[in-house]
Amino acid sequence: MIEAQKKTVLIIGGGAVGAIAALNLEVGGLAEVTLVLRSNYDAVNTHGFDIKSCDHGQVQGWKASRVRNTIPNLTTESLPPYGYILLCTKNIPDIPPTPASLVAPALPPSNTHTVLILLQNGLHIHKPFLASHPTTPVLSGISMIGSEETAPGKIIQDDPDRLLIGAFPNPNLGEDAGSAAAQDFARRYSAGGKTSCRVSGDVLHDRWRKLVYNAVLNPVCAILGLDTGRLRLAGGGEVVEGVVRPAMREVVRAAGACGVQLEEGVVEEMVEAEPVESYLSPSMLADVRKGNFIEYENLLGEPLREGKEKGVEMPTIEMLYYMAKAVQWRTAERKGLVEIPAKKV
Amino acid sequence: MIEAQKKTVLIIGGGAVGAIAALNLEVGGLAEVTLVLRSNYDAVNTHGFDIKSCDHGQVQGWKASRVRNTIPNLTTESLPPYGYILLCTKNIPDIPPTPASLVAPALPPSNTHTVLILLQNGLHIHKPFLASHPTTPVLSGISMIGSEETAPGKIIQDDPDRLLIGAFPNPNLGEDAGSAAAQDFARRYSAGGKTSCRVSGDVLHDRWRKLVYNAVLNPVCAILGLDTGRLRLAGGGEVVEGVVRPAMREVVRAAGACGVQLEEGVVEEMVEAEPVESYLSPSMLADVRKGNFIEYENLLGEPLREGKEKGVEMPTIEMLYYMAKAVQWRTAERKGLVEIPAKKV
Repeated sequence: MIEAQKKTVLIIGGGAVGAIAALNLEVGGLAEVTLVLRSNYDAVNTHGFDIKSCDHGQVQGWKASRVRNTIPNLTTESLPPYGYILLCTKNIPDIPPTPASLVAPALPPSNTHTVLILLQNGLHIHKPFLASHPTTPVLSGISMIGSEETAPGKIIQDDPDRLLIGAFPNPNLGEDAGSAAAQDFARRYSAGGKTSCRVSGDVLHDRWRKLVYNAVLNPVCAILGLDTGRLRLAGGGEVVEGVVRPAMREVVRAAGACGVQLEEGVVEEMVEAEPVESYLSPSMLADVRKGNFIEYENLLGEPLREGKEKGVEMPTIEMLYYMAKAVQWRTAERKGLVEIPAKKV
Repeated sequence: MIEAQKKTVLIIGGGAVGAIAALNLEVGGLAEVTLVLRSNYDAVNTHGFDIKSCDHGQVQGWKASRVRNTIPNLTTESLPPYGYILLCTKNIPDIPPTPASLVAPALPPSNTHTVLILLQNGLHIHKPFLASHPTTPVLSGISMIGSEETAPGKIIQDDPDRLLIGAFPNPNLGEDAGSAAAQDFARRYSAGGKTSCRVSGDVLHDRWRKLVYNAVLNPVCAILGLDTGRLRLAGGGEVVEGVVRPAMREVVRAAGACGVQLEEGVVEEMVEAEPVESYLSPSMLADVRKGNFIEYENLLGEPLREGKEKGVEMPTIEMLYYMAKAVQWRTAERKGLVEIPAKKV
């Protein structure tokens, strides 16, 4: 009976977030996961994941039901559509492919069956799909997990997986479509009893709230090469006072100008989101250390543009934005994607 | 006859700036240089300097008249006082030893004979000497050289050595003492005909002017890990627009509030101080890459404090200051000088 209730879930991206989502969904027994990997495919396909998780304990050699290194092509592989597609890749609009083109082989433009969940950070990430997949229900997934891939296939999860699901607005669909899908997915995600998955009615609020952390600690740690613990210790706390808090207050003001009132104390909560002694590397710092591109446009660029359009002064965020842009350029140059004039002595 | 005119010059610090100063003074024939080296002592003592200079050409295996790895102790070594002491070390007040205690063995507290020249960057660097050596004439040396030590004893000088000498104010001495010393030193420094050494009557103006470059390009390049050429190319020039120019304008406004009017166009001049194709690493970037401490207090902290005291808004400089403080802390931690709480998983 339980078997019959299972839905197929395609998870694209099996890094620190996607791997835990895959594990948690299969532990619940209400999902059959196909996991698409890229950089860690060889490691995981051979040895499985090695996961040390505060939710799931020590899990060695684990694999999802299916593991692959390409996006399934429904047409050429004659596959039925998935119940859910969970996009857990980075969302980096300044670097191709776009999320909409990435997901295309598994999601026909006229899809109405498959529910797409963007388990990604930042503002406005659903907007491209309104154009490419106008009738697809798109859900927002906000993960407050603390996890890190320390080597290909090795995941350390320090901080519990708390997932917030909600429907992005879509003028082409009834409001109920999205919220029913969110309820269904939350039930499947919670079935294992190890994690918390809530359904939210206010996605915009949730996204701005998480930006207080993500638009600030992510780039500051990435730019300075310090994890959040060290950042708080640096200069006896002066760096948090001088950079982190002012930037977070700017995000809160921008949210307010966009009609999202964040509660008093959100800055404090985000500064202390994890203990100093976790020495957590936010995803942007982990990416910089791996030589990967960073998600600075959705995390910094979009809230900056929204805030400035509403007349909010955001000097700290603006400077972080341009510094993150420099970090992105540095990565592009190191990857050989930028041509620069020859040195003259 | 020329031999009789020679003065002894003790140069403390033989990195990219001190080595070129030593070479240039000895080429002129009016100075006999004792050069104190630290990290590159072994390399230079064995093989001499290998200098590729736009002023002096290719110079291989060169050594000053005397090379040593300790500060001469006039008392225990029974040495006569030097004519000049040129301090070419970094000036890092947050890390011991202080410049005044460093120079002490070669400069008695009651000295009136030796002229001290601080070939160092930043504001207010003469003030500690007013207390420790109240009767010593102290000159400001501002070097607009572009040079870099690429390996111990290997110096590449891309950009001509232009030195600006002037007397720091000292209420214990007549005004003429300092300016006569500045004239004498400039004559000796220019004697080789290869470099330009000017005497300035307005040291404060000169120092603020150089800060437009040093308070901005130094920390920005050090924080982002980009040389000045790459910084200008990054993001198609947007990083210069978004970070560098706003910060430079803040320094210009702070200077103005301190009574130093910098000419229109100084920002543009400093942004383009060297061609993109030089890919010059400012000293702070070179220091970060070598794992060394950076001079952020005199270059950023002092102008920030001066400007803020005068009521100037300096949000960009302030943020760079705190980020530089984080970089300094990161270096201290890597050197094992900071104890942090143990990681808890």
